Amino acid sequence: MRLAELSERSGVSVATIKYYLREGLLTPGRQVNSTTAEYDEEHLRRLRLVRAMIQVGRVPVATVREVLGHVDDDSLGRAIRLGTAVWALPQVPEPDEEDEYVQAAHQEATTLLDRLGWENAKRLTAVSPAYRSLVVTVAAFRRLGYDWGAERLAPYAELMHRTAVLDLDNMETHPSQAEQIEFAVLGAILNEPVLQALHRLAQEEESTRRYGFE
Amino acid sequence: MRLAELSERSGVSVATIKYYLREGLLTPGRQVNSTTAEYDEEHLRRLRLVRAMIQVGRVPVATVREVLGHVDDDSLGRAIRLGTAVWALPQVPEPDEEDEYVQAAHQEATTLLDRLGWENAKRLTAVSPAYRSLVVTVAAFRRLGYDWGAERLAPYAELMHRTAVLDLDNMETHPSQAEQIEFAVLGAILNEPVLQALHRLAQEEESTRRYGFE
Repeated sequence: MRLAELSERSGVSVATIKYYLREGLLTPGRQVNSTTAEYDEEHLRRLRLVRAMIQVGRVPVATVREVLGHVDDDSLGRAIRLGTAVWALPQVPEPDEEDEYVQAAHQEATTLLDRLGWENAKRLTAVSPAYRSLVVTVAAFRRLGYDWGAERLAPYAELMHRTAVLDLDNMETHPSQAEQIEFAVLGAILNEPVLQALHRLAQEEESTRRYGFE
Repeated sequence: MRLAELSERSGVSVATIKYYLREGLLTPGRQVNSTTAEYDEEHLRRLRLVRAMIQVGRVPVATVREVLGHVDDDSLGRAIRLGTAVWALPQVPEPDEEDEYVQAAHQEATTLLDRLGWENAKRLTAVSPAYRSLVVTVAAFRRLGYDWGAERLAPYAELMHRTAVLDLDNMETHPSQAEQIEFAVLGAILNEPVLQALHRLAQEEESTRRYGFE
């Protein structure tokens, strides 16, 4: 397809597509003659991903380039490609390791991983942004005077594990590894607001079932 | 306890507590003499809630006052008090009902609620911010060219329903209705980042179980 059709099918303006091409977020089309290039379905797919990252995820252009670099690097194993692509997305700041609440939160998080039997996640704690984010949040709870510990978190973690199983099952329906990894990046950006909306909707359903509408 | 002790036990400075008192976010202590007031455990609990809303939830002071008004209004039924308190928190903007993607998203959301048998949530769609938020997010997906429909969302919604059951079971362990509703408001602010962190951690655990560490 020509640039005009790529623009129409993606809903992204020609000027923006040209900007993405210049920034290297989209590979050039196949040059047909000096003024015309031809684009294919893969360009369209990649363009939608870039747009989702920038518009919905508010990911900076330089980070988009970095994430796509991981997505495209098929010299790496699958879990690593998945990890590095998602890890390049915006993350919580580093916890202050001197802080007593942070230290207590590490302890709680380790107890939680042991209780769940998440041996792999436990091996990754030194490098995982997800683990860091858990510690920061549990520390914030504790600082406010709420000590939600491993016992309380474990049933939530079990449900989130079933959610992750669904995520990966959905991911594996995509034919190629490149598409699967694109899907995972997209999920990291788009799924969280959907889950949050479904969670709040479920709270409304469950509380009106228990207490009625009055 | 005196103001100094309230400050020490909550970790909130005396100046900030005085500000909350002036703004009506905290009820005055029992006046012992012209310069000294006495505070109790209820003040401490309320102070922690206010601080969580302002510091972690970034809720504006006027909204905190509005939420607390609902929390304290025991003329209302429990589901309504829960709903209005949580509904007063920051929400997504109104969807543009003229937009074709929004219209398609309404259809998808209605199909989803029918399939799940969430009759109560269906009765609330006209007023529910959670429903609105679902529609806005599904419409954003569709605009980007991804049509995640009711079939794909249903298993996630079932898991979020189990999460909501846990939320309410935990809430019901609190003795009084006032404390239960405070707990629900707190959950709306603090639980979402915890769930997000656990979800990402579970994705790491599950993907390394499936694909190894290479």
